[in-house]
Amino acid sequence: MAGNFPLLPRLVEAARAAWRAYTRHEFVRLLAGGDLPEACFRRYLTQDYLFLIHFARAWGLAVYKSDTLPEMKRAQRLVAATLDVEIGLHIDYCRGWGLSEAAMAAEPEALATIAYTRFVLDRGLAGDRLDLEVALAPCVVGYAIIAAERIGDPDTRIEGNRYREWLEMYAGSDYQTLAREAEAALDEQFDRRGGEGRFPSLVASFTTAARLEADFWQMGVDAPR
Amino acid sequence: MAGNFPLLPRLVEAARAAWRAYTRHEFVRLLAGGDLPEACFRRYLTQDYLFLIHFARAWGLAVYKSDTLPEMKRAQRLVAATLDVEIGLHIDYCRGWGLSEAAMAAEPEALATIAYTRFVLDRGLAGDRLDLEVALAPCVVGYAIIAAERIGDPDTRIEGNRYREWLEMYAGSDYQTLAREAEAALDEQFDRRGGEGRFPSLVASFTTAARLEADFWQMGVDAPR
Amino acid sequence: MAGNFPLLPRLVEAARAAWRAYTRHEFVRLLAGGDLPEACFRRYLTQDYLFLIHFARAWGLAVYKSDTLPEMKRAQRLVAATLDVEIGLHIDYCRGWGLSEAAMAAEPEALATIAYTRFVLDRGLAGDRLDLEVALAPCVVGYAIIAAERIGDPDTRIEGNRYREWLEMYAGSDYQTLAREAEAALDEQFDRRGGEGRFPSLVASFTTAARLEADFWQMGVDAPR
Amino acid sequence: MAGNFPLLPRLVEAARAAWRAYTRHEFVRLLAGGDLPEACFRRYLTQDYLFLIHFARAWGLAVYKSDTLPEMKRAQRLVAATLDVEIGLHIDYCRGWGLSEAAMAAEPEALATIAYTRFVLDRGLAGDRLDLEVALAPCVVGYAIIAAERIGDPDTRIEGNRYREWLEMYAGSDYQTLAREAEAALDEQFDRRGGEGRFPSLVASFTTAARLEADFWQMGVDAPR
Repeated sequence: MAGNFPLLPRLVEAARAAWRAYTRHEFVRLLAGGDLPEACFRRYLTQDYLFLIHFARAWGLAVYKSDTLPEMKRAQRLVAATLDVEIGLHIDYCRGWGLSEAAMAAEPEALATIAYTRFVLDRGLAGDRLDLEVALAPCVVGYAIIAAERIGDPDTRIEGNRYREWLEMYAGSDYQTLAREAEAALDEQFDRRGGEGRFPSLVASFTTAARLEADFWQMGVDAPR
Repeated sequence: MAGNFPLLPRLVEAARAAWRAYTRHEFVRLLAGGDLPEACFRRYLTQDYLFLIHFARAWGLAVYKSDTLPEMKRAQRLVAATLDVEIGLHIDYCRGWGLSEAAMAAEPEALATIAYTRFVLDRGLAGDRLDLEVALAPCVVGYAIIAAERIGDPDTRIEGNRYREWLEMYAGSDYQTLAREAEAALDEQFDRRGGEGRFPSLVASFTTAARLEADFWQMGVDAPR
Repeated sequence: MAGNFPLLPRLVEAARAAWRAYTRHEFVRLLAGGDLPEACFRRYLTQDYLFLIHFARAWGLAVYKSDTLPEMKRAQRLVAATLDVEIGLHIDYCRGWGLSEAAMAAEPEALATIAYTRFVLDRGLAGDRLDLEVALAPCVVGYAIIAAERIGDPDTRIEGNRYREWLEMYAGSDYQTLAREAEAALDEQFDRRGGEGRFPSLVASFTTAARLEADFWQMGVDAPR
Repeated sequence: MAGNFPLLPRLVEAARAAWRAYTRHEFVRLLAGGDLPEACFRRYLTQDYLFLIHFARAWGLAVYKSDTLPEMKRAQRLVAATLDVEIGLHIDYCRGWGLSEAAMAAEPEALATIAYTRFVLDRGLAGDRLDLEVALAPCVVGYAIIAAERIGDPDTRIEGNRYREWLEMYAGSDYQTLAREAEAALDEQFDRRGGEGRFPSLVASFTTAARLEADFWQMGVDAPR
């Protein structure tokens, strides 16, 4: 039966409070309204640069943990998308915010950055590839859901919002497609490696990952302190 | 439904040919009849010493891969049983066959030893703890089944068989109990981490592991060449 | 030359600011003076229980990552010391502070707990056993140094200090011996697996680990908020 | 001092007998003379296809184990080269020998294939990235050396040799360049992560890897049996 119901909505439902605290976090609402202090956003951008390096490592690990060639190629595409495209775009975008790559690379990782990235890698190494992808889902799929929700919200300001580009990138069709592929991959893996018995531990992992993503936003909000 | 049928007999049934080739291997039949050339047995004993080191590493890995304290303690007991008891008993037993620990430690690992031990470790690292334990099952449970079958077989010679001690150790209640605990652990983990979707890949892994165990016997048989 | 100078003091010297921020943290000074609010200590105790589980996992990983039998047995002794002794003593001690094991196990891991434990495990998996032990050193050796410094400080209160037992345990000869063995193991591994070229990356890792330990104390201090 | 002498020639020198047994193996000499039975070559091609899948996994693991972005990008390029180019070329080439991808994928991995690939992965997981690359070197660099030696040997037959394409591919400048980059990467990593203390264990690993590569050739030679 498990295979008939998509996995992601079930995880979101089971982790409801943590998911809501993450996807509707103050950081997100302030950003959507154009009211987030720039110091918060710059802090977030810098740590997100450091995050991406470990995100690429996680997909490298997924290459190793693949059982089939198609699975391996999907992980490889995500390593490439991160190292060849995303990090580059991120660096360009950050330059517009006055942040050089050298400055970001010299910044120590924040507690929230270490916690989320290493939690994901540990889930991926202690468990199997499904554990890895479930721990990554709040990031990969979460950003798509957050941006789509904000763009569709009447309180969101588009014109004159200095964070508009950020919102439109994650709400845009490229990123939405990538997120939908990630959801489909979760279903494919839950069919092939899952089973209802695993559901509680996947929920625990997804909940912690969502909580750590909320802590990541909070790290941005706390920047001026 | 999966939880209602014990996992090991299902794996044995699905891997029937490889299982039979392993458990009824020429090495085993010659040993049970007392007809195995001593050079074959000495080769086997030496490689089994080298095998045990990686076997302990595999249970160390299982400590790392544990989700719960009881699971962790079971893995720890198996590390301890291997390092504190088994290796010591093995060294004593080998001394009786004229093999010193130093001589065994100086021997290069045979191809079959490398293949089986590293296959198990890779399954354990690429997959989760259930993958690890399924890859170990042909060893842990297989030896108990082999010895029990041989002891119960009318063609087996007990009196005057120079391999009697080996047969009686693995047919004895200590080892049989350990094997039964391993079977129960497989069921517990298949309930908690498994699901029918995983069954084909577990069968593939179990089949390869059984085949590599047969190659390990063959390495003993081939020793005089 | 490297082998002639013990590694730990070199790491401490190179990570001076982070080391000082950790070993002389407000939490430690308040505890030594008997002035730490109990809520802070209880928070620390609960998270330390959760920490110990991952600490045992780290030594399980070290069993897997061992190159030699003596190295493997040392890791195994530390798994056993953690699972059979330390966790038990910790539970007994916490009971005296009104904390049951069930209550502690039900508590979510704090951000600082996740960050430090998973950072250590990632260093251990991405690097080799020397990387793992260097990341663990601020914990294993740091506690011995902290307790010895506090016990030797005239500002420390022993009589009537409700944290006296904690201080005396880590300043006591059992724990001091364990820490000295860990220092010796670092030297032995730096000889066998190190080299000056690795020193900067070991310093980076040691510094981050010390910083994460300071964050762990801070999590205790912040408890009442 | 270590950094002044390139690592690969030192490893080759220290592993001399195993290196010679691998690089001058009967399989190689028969192939260079055009006298290798086709059944041997087909067996080799099929197992080499299965090998490449784990080779890609090894470079995925290297992405995870990278300390720097340039190091990560080099590993990523090798994943891509394997999955996007090499496997494709291999499949095309094998088609010319009457081997379809489906037929090769359905073949069980030979003992020698399992032994070498899983040995490499275990070195990479138990050790650090230098351990991983040293275990891969007999493959990556060895093929370049073997082909260059054969092409330069007067006993080698080029005209009318059905294995000419194979020899020319690995002796060709593309592959020779890739091998030289791998040698340079070993030096760069030995400077940054090595030290003379590690040399004996790197030699042990390199020697075993060379021995397992010789076993891989032998598996081809033994095919008709």
